[in-house]
Amino acid sequence: MRVLVTGATGFLGRHITTAFLEAGHSVVGVGQQPKHKASISAGVDYYQHNLLVSDSTSQKANVEIFDGLKIDTLVHLAWNVRPRYWTSLENLDWLVAGITLYKSAIASGVRRIVGAGTCAEYEWSCDFLSPAVTPLTPSSLYGKAKNSLREVLESASQISETSFAWGRIFFPYGPFESPERLVPSVINSLLCNKPALCSHGRQERDFMFASDVARAFVVVAESDFQGALNIASGQCTSVREVVNTLVDLVGGTAEFGAVTTHRNEPPRLAADVSQLLALGFKPKTTLQKGLQDSVDWWKPGDLSST
Amino acid sequence: MRVLVTGATGFLGRHITTAFLEAGHSVVGVGQQPKHKASISAGVDYYQHNLLVSDSTSQKANVEIFDGLKIDTLVHLAWNVRPRYWTSLENLDWLVAGITLYKSAIASGVRRIVGAGTCAEYEWSCDFLSPAVTPLTPSSLYGKAKNSLREVLESASQISETSFAWGRIFFPYGPFESPERLVPSVINSLLCNKPALCSHGRQERDFMFASDVARAFVVVAESDFQGALNIASGQCTSVREVVNTLVDLVGGTAEFGAVTTHRNEPPRLAADVSQLLALGFKPKTTLQKGLQDSVDWWKPGDLSST
Repeated sequence: MRVLVTGATGFLGRHITTAFLEAGHSVVGVGQQPKHKASISAGVDYYQHNLLVSDSTSQKANVEIFDGLKIDTLVHLAWNVRPRYWTSLENLDWLVAGITLYKSAIASGVRRIVGAGTCAEYEWSCDFLSPAVTPLTPSSLYGKAKNSLREVLESASQISETSFAWGRIFFPYGPFESPERLVPSVINSLLCNKPALCSHGRQERDFMFASDVARAFVVVAESDFQGALNIASGQCTSVREVVNTLVDLVGGTAEFGAVTTHRNEPPRLAADVSQLLALGFKPKTTLQKGLQDSVDWWKPGDLSST
Repeated sequence: MRVLVTGATGFLGRHITTAFLEAGHSVVGVGQQPKHKASISAGVDYYQHNLLVSDSTSQKANVEIFDGLKIDTLVHLAWNVRPRYWTSLENLDWLVAGITLYKSAIASGVRRIVGAGTCAEYEWSCDFLSPAVTPLTPSSLYGKAKNSLREVLESASQISETSFAWGRIFFPYGPFESPERLVPSVINSLLCNKPALCSHGRQERDFMFASDVARAFVVVAESDFQGALNIASGQCTSVREVVNTLVDLVGGTAEFGAVTTHRNEPPRLAADVSQLLALGFKPKTTLQKGLQDSVDWWKPGDLSST
């Protein structure tokens, strides 16, 4: 396959571009950073391109990339996931950018499109989230914008006879993760010999190591699966267990209850992964191993070897 | 109020601009036609502006209109409703245009936004469509794109503290309607002394005369109602009754069953109008009177008086 990955320099984009390369595919990456600043696998053919600018020049650039580089598969990850992205009005811009990119892709005859969705598209008063049965009534603008993008692109793909899949990502963690997220913030507190300040920690979530998320996207893209499916490990673990494992690995202490949780924080968000397993995917990385790799990644290196 | 109405030269746009004028408001109309071709009430301050072009020049034009004309209320009607609009990929462009317009509106401090939705946003296997209880699982790309626009703008409005209402229009009819739609096509067949070829005609729909739709939009815009509500008459009538009334008014015959219905054609789509009634709105035009007015509008006029 000749794959274009948007958001290529983001947390999951780096893992996903690498996973496509490792699976033997030809990979074009698109990101906002200039080429000399974009940290990405050497085998990726990288282009700087701001998808948020939807003027005619930018749309022409989209088409030039798809046509000129003979892309057959689009993996669309790009989205704002900076702090406070749940309620940012920038979600509107990413919805527009996704539609604009999609139109360029189908105009260029792209054969298959795989989009990155989120478990935030589901109704979170349910504790088992399944594409087959769980209502799609997201509470956040982030979830609504992602769900809207999926809804209109899935329908448009049926009309334009384009193959379309949508992977709803749950709780990924691993190298390149933003430092304000759960796993890095706990690791960095512990590495600085500070107590890790946590919520009550009883929330259960489906954590998945980033390289497993990436391999799942490769499996989905290579398959002819159409529609929405969950990208998750199938294992639901409490935040407390994750934090305690990190304390075991790094040392130090955690203070549960030091941080208040949002009043609507759901106690459990488990994922139905039957569709992903049916495609032959198996997660490779245990929680223990994934957290160990995350700790190793954040540990200050030996400067002489960098 | 100083109201900007998009889609001002469309079927409902003409009625809605007129109704706002009649209610004493100052009305700016925007449409795609050049000014000398735009058929619209003389009191409307009309601007030609293509909302589908979302480049930076066009976005600047949006802001100039909102800022320069001191708009406080946006009534957004513009959408592709030409034949085959249910499955047109142009629905994606109108979703993008709606978001782009919205961003310009809130950037200019517009106080209140009222959008035109559709009964096609609802699950049509239900026969009583209510914002309070009916699932929003539209089957068409048209319904999905409209529902997506409402979903993200309603959420963004809560975040940006903008007043937002969304009127789901059912089955409007009346002067300026497109000739391929039910009421005009039956009238025109009968006026040409041809039999009106119809489906079985047992489907029940909420038909609402266009000037009542228009007054409903004025009532909603003037109120502080927020969220989605139905714009409908509250009366569900069979297609057969509408056609038979037209036959009584014009003469001629109807052939029921001459046209096959779509296999998923719902037998009944009644509207919950409790929210609209609670705002003090009452429909003025009976079906008999509305159909008579429609017939009169389509009848070839005395050329000397035009």
